[in-house]
Amino acid sequence: MSAQNQKKNYRLKQNWYSKSKTNQQPGKRPQKGRGGKRPNAVSRIKPVKKPPVRISFLGGLNEIGKNITLIECENDIVIVDCGMAFPDGDMLGVDLVIPDFSYIEQNVDKVRGIVLTHGHEDHIGGLPFLLSKINVPLYGTPLTLGLVENKLREHSLINKVKLNTVNAGSTIKLGCMDVKFIHVNHSIPDSVAFAIKTPGGTIVHTGDFKIDCTPISGDTIDLSSFARVGDEGVLALLAESTNAERAGYTPTEQMVSESLDNLFKKAEKYRIIIATFASNVNRVQQIINTADKYGRKVAFSGRSMVNYMDVAVKLGYLHLPQNILIDIDMLSKYPPEQVVLVTTGSQGEPMSALSRMAYSDHRKVMVGEGDFIIISANPIPGNEKTVGNVVDELLKRGCKVIYESMYDVHVSGHACQEELKLMHRLVRPKYFIPVHGEQKHLRKHAELAEFLGMERKNIFIGDIGNTVEVCDDYMKQIASVPAGKVFVDGLGVGDVGSIVLRDRKHLGQDGLIIIVASLDVYDGHVISGPDIVSRGFVYVRESEGLLDEVRQLALGILEDCAENNVHEWGIIKNRLREEIAKLISQRTRRSPMILPILQEV
Amino acid sequence: MSAQNQKKNYRLKQNWYSKSKTNQQPGKRPQKGRGGKRPNAVSRIKPVKKPPVRISFLGGLNEIGKNITLIECENDIVIVDCGMAFPDGDMLGVDLVIPDFSYIEQNVDKVRGIVLTHGHEDHIGGLPFLLSKINVPLYGTPLTLGLVENKLREHSLINKVKLNTVNAGSTIKLGCMDVKFIHVNHSIPDSVAFAIKTPGGTIVHTGDFKIDCTPISGDTIDLSSFARVGDEGVLALLAESTNAERAGYTPTEQMVSESLDNLFKKAEKYRIIIATFASNVNRVQQIINTADKYGRKVAFSGRSMVNYMDVAVKLGYLHLPQNILIDIDMLSKYPPEQVVLVTTGSQGEPMSALSRMAYSDHRKVMVGEGDFIIISANPIPGNEKTVGNVVDELLKRGCKVIYESMYDVHVSGHACQEELKLMHRLVRPKYFIPVHGEQKHLRKHAELAEFLGMERKNIFIGDIGNTVEVCDDYMKQIASVPAGKVFVDGLGVGDVGSIVLRDRKHLGQDGLIIIVASLDVYDGHVISGPDIVSRGFVYVRESEGLLDEVRQLALGILEDCAENNVHEWGIIKNRLREEIAKLISQRTRRSPMILPILQEV
Repeated sequence: MSAQNQKKNYRLKQNWYSKSKTNQQPGKRPQKGRGGKRPNAVSRIKPVKKPPVRISFLGGLNEIGKNITLIECENDIVIVDCGMAFPDGDMLGVDLVIPDFSYIEQNVDKVRGIVLTHGHEDHIGGLPFLLSKINVPLYGTPLTLGLVENKLREHSLINKVKLNTVNAGSTIKLGCMDVKFIHVNHSIPDSVAFAIKTPGGTIVHTGDFKIDCTPISGDTIDLSSFARVGDEGVLALLAESTNAERAGYTPTEQMVSESLDNLFKKAEKYRIIIATFASNVNRVQQIINTADKYGRKVAFSGRSMVNYMDVAVKLGYLHLPQNILIDIDMLSKYPPEQVVLVTTGSQGEPMSALSRMAYSDHRKVMVGEGDFIIISANPIPGNEKTVGNVVDELLKRGCKVIYESMYDVHVSGHACQEELKLMHRLVRPKYFIPVHGEQKHLRKHAELAEFLGMERKNIFIGDIGNTVEVCDDYMKQIASVPAGKVFVDGLGVGDVGSIVLRDRKHLGQDGLIIIVASLDVYDGHVISGPDIVSRGFVYVRESEGLLDEVRQLALGILEDCAENNVHEWGIIKNRLREEIAKLISQRTRRSPMILPILQEV
Repeated sequence: MSAQNQKKNYRLKQNWYSKSKTNQQPGKRPQKGRGGKRPNAVSRIKPVKKPPVRISFLGGLNEIGKNITLIECENDIVIVDCGMAFPDGDMLGVDLVIPDFSYIEQNVDKVRGIVLTHGHEDHIGGLPFLLSKINVPLYGTPLTLGLVENKLREHSLINKVKLNTVNAGSTIKLGCMDVKFIHVNHSIPDSVAFAIKTPGGTIVHTGDFKIDCTPISGDTIDLSSFARVGDEGVLALLAESTNAERAGYTPTEQMVSESLDNLFKKAEKYRIIIATFASNVNRVQQIINTADKYGRKVAFSGRSMVNYMDVAVKLGYLHLPQNILIDIDMLSKYPPEQVVLVTTGSQGEPMSALSRMAYSDHRKVMVGEGDFIIISANPIPGNEKTVGNVVDELLKRGCKVIYESMYDVHVSGHACQEELKLMHRLVRPKYFIPVHGEQKHLRKHAELAEFLGMERKNIFIGDIGNTVEVCDDYMKQIASVPAGKVFVDGLGVGDVGSIVLRDRKHLGQDGLIIIVASLDVYDGHVISGPDIVSRGFVYVRESEGLLDEVRQLALGILEDCAENNVHEWGIIKNRLREEIAKLISQRTRRSPMILPILQEV
């Protein structure tokens, strides 16, 4: 950076920090549909050039999960969240998906810290993989860091990384940026949004949020902080779009209390089992409160449920009446009508506690006609079928099952359209970038902003890898940064790519046929084999004739090659592959992977 | 059957046919909640024993699709429908699923015919596979048989099978049974329910139905026939349960017309593309009518759309205004605002026309900002994700997309709770068996029947393979019949079973490692190899070290076996599998399939 520029920036900083005082009158709202330019504090004749802010998306656009955004100004980068995503159905064998971190690795010197909005996996799940490569300080609220701590301990990273607790309402300085933590409501306590004051202007990132005027614990979303930030002037708003398609408001979490109360009455004589998200501490709190009211003991089931509740109790986010908790092993010691089991598995995950109960595969809990089961969650898109299957199995075992939206046993943690509108109106940004959602969610959110009077050119619908440069005068897309989906499979990170996945898909769909033969090193004649081995293709015992045909064909090709002095293995293997594929296709209309393996003896 | 029994049955038949006259007073409703026994026409002191009716379910219970029910009385069997189902996500590589027909094959002498409720794949799709094994006459309405005819022609069965056209309202005699075809409303024209009069009593099978008081074509469901059958006395009702979870009424198909009209107005300057089910002839009729009103030409896209429309036009179920139809190749000759393209792909099926358009893979249609795309269908459970992906891709290309329930562009073809209640009240059966649905649908439908006053013991919630015996005195489950899911993969029917699927799943999730070695036939020492080949496991170029470790380990094991005179291949292979699996798991936490292949030289 040139000396002149530095000077300019210095002046700008001075200027910027006093802007709200000199330029904006709190309480007086800017006019709707104002023009592209914002009045500058310095004379219009010679405006001081502010540095632009660059916003890069390594995840969270055109996808659900894997949320991570980079805010870059001058020589500093602040990272907002570092999440993971669950694999799609076509990512066979992949355990989880994390962002491509290469841009961060290349610019590690600029990174001042990672600020975390809340403790959900799609916002913190990528941390161990990033932090095993680079060391950056983390900033988050107590519960968020409590959950991160567990995660880092599992990955033996706990002694390496500096965790900095920040309470909602506080502001921290990271390089040239001041990051204000603003309390929001969400389906996990201690969630925050960020107002990041940069020399180029303020960027607001909502994280995940909803507006709950009667939350179970803690305060209502800090509307006045959003209002104040809005009053001071916001360059760009990045707001979540999960529920942008849904009209109206997300109901208060309290609504669930009433439903639970009714269901507990109805389930008088039954054992109650409730499946919900392990991270939804407030939901569990409501279950515990209701259990307490009806004199039932509570047990937890599922590893993540137990882990989350440990952290939540330790940090004071979950309040347990005396002696209400019992170990799952003690469940059978109580009559059914005196217990509640809170379990994971609300998404029908195959290995979860509830699924195991449904398929009679749980070591400790057998379910049947005496059970009243409440699924206190909605299926995440893509999980409808697995959830449905678990419900069916439970019903077959004679359980009563309360599922889906039948009884208001779940509310979303995300803002619906009316709440999003309020956020826009409070923050009143110059530019808007919808984040956290598939294309349809981002578009709907953009339409919403247009409906509120924002010009289309001030809205950016992006994709991962995109970088936008924003300043008072413009918002424009600049050169992209590396981004993608990095697959984690077992201990391997990134070693499963498109070729491996393509092979897995092929093998999974059609199986394979292996042709093995030992050839004479001198004349290429077959010394042993060819042997035919197949897996995932046909039931071998019933298809001996076909496999024998394949063997004869392979032998013919190999001998023909030997006779004609074709000794190049590439050519021989190609002939084997092509002719056998043709035979198989004629006989079966299938196309298994065909793997010729030749050995020289 | 003993002579005495035969005699009894004869008397019974005489008796039964006159029952409605002697015993029941039309117009006078039986009392609600009447007892288990029905008054008999003959004196109570010596009642004539009617033969029981046996109802067997080869499909359609605890599953969506593959509907097929057998009604058996005395020496006769009537088969209601013969459908297929689409594979679940875990049935890798399977094209479609059909019923296990072995019970039908074993009892082919008794089968008097197959009666078809309507032309959807889940009701007729299994026919070619059954009819290639046995020859049975088919009975159906004109459109249903038109669609069956196409299907049989494809499978070269058309000259073998006798197709008998029956119009709704008619009754046919099949052995000892009289089958009355009763017109119902559904999402394909010419749908019927059956009232099957057997010597043991009348069985009503609703097929798929809804009550549409203002259908697009044809009449409202024949309520009076159901009423009359009910008046005459119904032993058992088998009613579909697809929408048993949904309160209220399914709206009339006409509602879609209004929505289409509004959208056509809105899409004034755009080319309109509408995706819907190819079989929904009435929906296509509405699209054509609206197109005609707005002066647009119509083209069809997608093989099944073209096929269905061919049959529908030929048989008079689709009415085309003069010159409205154009070939898809002519599409580009017209300005966008003068055409409508009606296409398949409303479920996001990967190979469908709409998917190809979305992924720029369609040979004839390129979509972009000038396109207004309407998805006139709801995602079938399990398809939410694929439909969402297609919508996202279309949005990314700049298309306007109307999807899901935003604009009332779709109504269901199935009865909701209020319609189901009406059916129960019209038919007033003694026994009730909910059919066509997952466990949760069947349960909900059973609860509905209980709510209407039926005793729980008179309701049977079954599974495929179950057989129930019903007569005036009881309904009881008797010995099951063979039933299951037979997989069709390419030309193979039933040759892909659980072992093949397990291998496919394993290969698809984790890939495989093949170890090939040639051993000395005399001393077992390695002559060639071991060579390591992997597919779908890791990206080989980046994992040479690991694969080399595997090679060294394999070589060590083979030589160790040779040294210690272990020559039994089973033992050697097991050692290779176990020790290599252990190494791989330690290094990668993955478990690929490990395939040792040894050759003797």
